[in-house]
Amino acid sequence: MDIPKIDILVIGCGPAGMSAAINATIRKKKTIIYGGSFCSQKLNKAPHIDNYLGCYDISGEDLRRKYLNHIEKFGIEIVNEKIDSIYISKDEFNVVSKGKVLICKSIILAVGIETVGYLPNEQNLLGKGVSYCATCDGGLYKNKVVGVVGYNKKAEEELKFLEGLAKQVYYIPMYKEIGEVGSTTTIIKEKPQEIIGKEKLEGILINDEIINLEGLFLLKETIPPKDLLQGLNIDDKDIVVNRKMETNIPGVYAAGDVTGEPYQLAKAVGEGAIAGLSAAAYLEGKEKRLD
Amino acid sequence: MDIPKIDILVIGCGPAGMSAAINATIRKKKTIIYGGSFCSQKLNKAPHIDNYLGCYDISGEDLRRKYLNHIEKFGIEIVNEKIDSIYISKDEFNVVSKGKVLICKSIILAVGIETVGYLPNEQNLLGKGVSYCATCDGGLYKNKVVGVVGYNKKAEEELKFLEGLAKQVYYIPMYKEIGEVGSTTTIIKEKPQEIIGKEKLEGILINDEIINLEGLFLLKETIPPKDLLQGLNIDDKDIVVNRKMETNIPGVYAAGDVTGEPYQLAKAVGEGAIAGLSAAAYLEGKEKRLD
Repeated sequence: MDIPKIDILVIGCGPAGMSAAINATIRKKKTIIYGGSFCSQKLNKAPHIDNYLGCYDISGEDLRRKYLNHIEKFGIEIVNEKIDSIYISKDEFNVVSKGKVLICKSIILAVGIETVGYLPNEQNLLGKGVSYCATCDGGLYKNKVVGVVGYNKKAEEELKFLEGLAKQVYYIPMYKEIGEVGSTTTIIKEKPQEIIGKEKLEGILINDEIINLEGLFLLKETIPPKDLLQGLNIDDKDIVVNRKMETNIPGVYAAGDVTGEPYQLAKAVGEGAIAGLSAAAYLEGKEKRLD
Repeated sequence: MDIPKIDILVIGCGPAGMSAAINATIRKKKTIIYGGSFCSQKLNKAPHIDNYLGCYDISGEDLRRKYLNHIEKFGIEIVNEKIDSIYISKDEFNVVSKGKVLICKSIILAVGIETVGYLPNEQNLLGKGVSYCATCDGGLYKNKVVGVVGYNKKAEEELKFLEGLAKQVYYIPMYKEIGEVGSTTTIIKEKPQEIIGKEKLEGILINDEIINLEGLFLLKETIPPKDLLQGLNIDDKDIVVNRKMETNIPGVYAAGDVTGEPYQLAKAVGEGAIAGLSAAAYLEGKEKRLD
């Protein structure tokens, strides 16, 4: 099987990600955007925008359409899937999404700000029974009891996968309009209070009662960047970048709200453009060295 | 006479300056733009722009109109005059343009990249017979022989002022379509080669001949930022800023091409927005301290 190879992977399809992809594409780099199911929810919800120069008194919905139209004119592909994990290997990145691998030479992180916080104890137990990726780690829980916290409807796809493996699934949806779930799945419509366990996951506290679990999957719109890229330099919650939008990992750039305040459209678009051009220049530099 | 006072002065009416002014105005700061005679020449000349997210395949001329329309909708005043000098006094800036003073609390430098280089010896003799401002220094040359290098048609206004003072004026226009000049003025349609003088201006070399001068005025579209603001930190030719667009001088911000590459519209608009918001936050911080 041929593993698809691209130049630049943009993670996030908000204004920063789209601006990065356009600028990288202009520099003739094969660029793909991986983004949420709707690009972008946050922009679309803005009733009225008038601080993006050139677009006076526009609705977020209209500006979103203009942005997506721009992306379409450039023929840039947007894949509405979550990135599950990234492995750095020599000069490349192996990127896993839905169990498939993609190889890229550079990554631009434009995932926006976290809209969901961490649950108490989540960060301690990550990798010790708690996972962000059903397709990556599901195999470990054959015939076991697992919990799944679904932060949006798209989580139901991964839920299905787990239902085919686990003995018993507790599904805790954090959204309304829940679709069909497997007949053996128990739906719990209460918010989780805490993840229980010290060295290893033991269960989840909901409604002051502990449900014992062997595995717990937290299926978010995007995996937090620091959990996606080991060793990424984060200050408080912002990815640390310089004015070229370089992170501390060679070949990895960041742009938009993920790099910190002000959370503004113009900043996101500007930083995206710089990140796209920096990533393109990075690839050209590497090509030159190989000559 | 009442000296006009404003919150934020934006110098430069390109994309960075306009974006800064819009964002500062949204934060309810009294903001004025001082800019060249045409905002902006560089944008207007771009035949085709397609890397500014949301505006696919647009001409520079059309985008310029959209930008200016945005500025008009916000009621932001653009003054088509050059800033001649800036004096830092306590918490304020005294800004001189055409002999008139304006007081502002914060300055955003968005003057773009230098389109004209320095003449040989120009930087050595600045303030030693060489001046960038006829209205500031003209009075020193009553009944003397002066040279005037006019980098654009607007220089002719300052030329008139000098003609009323000096004994003899040599006018060296660096543009075509020269307007009417005084009857005693000698027009030289050759490019200057070098400014002559060691400790003090002696003359100018043109066509391998020295014209002896007591004063020389170099009338550019904008005065280079480092000559406008004493002590401004410059690296090579770029104003040094951090990610908040702060320069080393408190209250002074910079945005756009003047902060360095990439020379891109989206970068300029993004940095302008950040500079506008940073300047507004700076003023709010000062107000709080005074409470």
